[in-house]
Amino acid sequence: MQVLKNSKVMNNIEQQFQEILQDKRPENLYNPISYILMQSGKRLRPQMVHIASEMFDGDPEETRHIAAAFEMLHNFTLIHDDIMDKADVRRGQPTVYKKWDGNTAILAGDALAVIAMQQLLKLQCDPKTILDLIEIFGQTAVEVCEGQQYDLDFETMDNVSIDQYLNMIRLKTSVMFAGCLKAGGRYAGADEESLQALYDLGIHLGLAFQLADDLLDVYADEEVFGKAVGGDIKDNKKTFLLIKTLELADETQKQQLLNLFSTTPADEKAKFQQVKAIFDAVDVRKATEEEIARYTEKCMDDINRIHTTEEKKAFVLDMVQRLQSRNK
Amino acid sequence: MQVLKNSKVMNNIEQQFQEILQDKRPENLYNPISYILMQSGKRLRPQMVHIASEMFDGDPEETRHIAAAFEMLHNFTLIHDDIMDKADVRRGQPTVYKKWDGNTAILAGDALAVIAMQQLLKLQCDPKTILDLIEIFGQTAVEVCEGQQYDLDFETMDNVSIDQYLNMIRLKTSVMFAGCLKAGGRYAGADEESLQALYDLGIHLGLAFQLADDLLDVYADEEVFGKAVGGDIKDNKKTFLLIKTLELADETQKQQLLNLFSTTPADEKAKFQQVKAIFDAVDVRKATEEEIARYTEKCMDDINRIHTTEEKKAFVLDMVQRLQSRNK
Repeated sequence: MQVLKNSKVMNNIEQQFQEILQDKRPENLYNPISYILMQSGKRLRPQMVHIASEMFDGDPEETRHIAAAFEMLHNFTLIHDDIMDKADVRRGQPTVYKKWDGNTAILAGDALAVIAMQQLLKLQCDPKTILDLIEIFGQTAVEVCEGQQYDLDFETMDNVSIDQYLNMIRLKTSVMFAGCLKAGGRYAGADEESLQALYDLGIHLGLAFQLADDLLDVYADEEVFGKAVGGDIKDNKKTFLLIKTLELADETQKQQLLNLFSTTPADEKAKFQQVKAIFDAVDVRKATEEEIARYTEKCMDDINRIHTTEEKKAFVLDMVQRLQSRNK
Repeated sequence: MQVLKNSKVMNNIEQQFQEILQDKRPENLYNPISYILMQSGKRLRPQMVHIASEMFDGDPEETRHIAAAFEMLHNFTLIHDDIMDKADVRRGQPTVYKKWDGNTAILAGDALAVIAMQQLLKLQCDPKTILDLIEIFGQTAVEVCEGQQYDLDFETMDNVSIDQYLNMIRLKTSVMFAGCLKAGGRYAGADEESLQALYDLGIHLGLAFQLADDLLDVYADEEVFGKAVGGDIKDNKKTFLLIKTLELADETQKQQLLNLFSTTPADEKAKFQQVKAIFDAVDVRKATEEEIARYTEKCMDDINRIHTTEEKKAFVLDMVQRLQSRNK
């Protein structure tokens, strides 16, 4: 998903980060922050802020502060999640936790979360608008923590229902998209109905995005995907595919699957093939694709509820359509 | 230091925390937060907020939100510091890191920092004032992270100067006091000069407080102190006493001290006695007490610069005077 990469709404966010971090000391605190912010990610969240703002004629120069705030908030969660998951690699590079250490990663994440919020204080608009943006930002941040806790809780739970799983990814992934879209719209003066539609769009987009992520982990074309498939299966991670398959499977398949997900075998490839065979047997790929289509449909409904011209909806429609054909 | 414990300005902060956390889920995120907030600490920071607000006739009911915000911010730093220091006990109870685990402590701290900020959004005053409070809060939070990073950096540095040490404790301890006093005053409508005086008072009070802390670790009466002395020496921690002694000592004493601080001997008591003998030989106790007196003196100057009645300065004077005779 490379949305708006060359659009005028996406200014050079890396340069903005450089300016924010310039001359900051101590280096051992700010170098890891700079390291993660300078990695080339998809920059989906700042794009969402800009897209929503532009739909209501928000000033792109000012919108950059909101975009930076949410991208920094996202990166703060990545730094801390990677400690919790003991993840070595992200975006093809060592994680902060791995390149430095756990303590450095804790503190860098802490500082980054606060600096993220501070970006909103740079806005020149009326104070009440800034307070509303800080409220959206704060609610997003707390809910992402709640989502991460549910994710950690699931690791040791035997039964996770589809509803519990969807609630977890709503909190862990969707509320950030929703926060970005709502914040962009709120800054630009969108009406309440449009703000609710933007928020709902973020929720549905996030759910579709995460389910596509779960699907790609098993069914991606590795060359396009850019990384090895099967990571979630290797880590015994509860995904939509696993939970849905447990729902669809017969007793034998279910027991096989539970056994496979309670081990860390020497032969990862064999485990992946065995799991995939059961996934294929119940056709969970189709079930997941249907679920993604359902959320994409909801996205279109949400977009219809935004009170702006069709012309101004082009970017956001483009974003949803690219998501539908997401292959990496 | 039990300031204002029974004063009308200190409402029941525990009850306030209970209300804030009521019905929050997931439990594994909010139980550790509730656990640390319900421990009976000195509640110095909320007291400072209330004292400053009351000097300018701030509404105590509203001030409670600011007091809660800073006490929660303080507790967030404790949760994360205890992971970094691998600390097992705080306030006589297991740390969050010890009672649960590192991941729980990271996430609980993250959520607590955001919830702390959110308390400021509850204020009913004009939006510009709230934004100023959020700015003070944010600056405090970032600087506390910077201070903690310097503290971590010092662990592996051979030479830490007095100036570097004072800068570290200014960031790690003083800016929080300064932020509390300034925030209380700003909320209540204090003039710029008084705000600067309140801020400076917090800085000087924090320095005196931390130097007294360093001193008590070696020279406290254990029965009054409530915990064993010598913790900093056992952990080879760089304190004002160590750095000042290295400055005052002759070459032989200096080498002895550096050797003692590069080891973790089986006999902690013997190490403590040997270190204390060198501290005594250069009379670092006197040098530290003089430094504390110097900062206490500055506190009195700062108080003189606050534009309010002498009657309204009673609480803040009481606080500084109690600090002078701090024995725990």
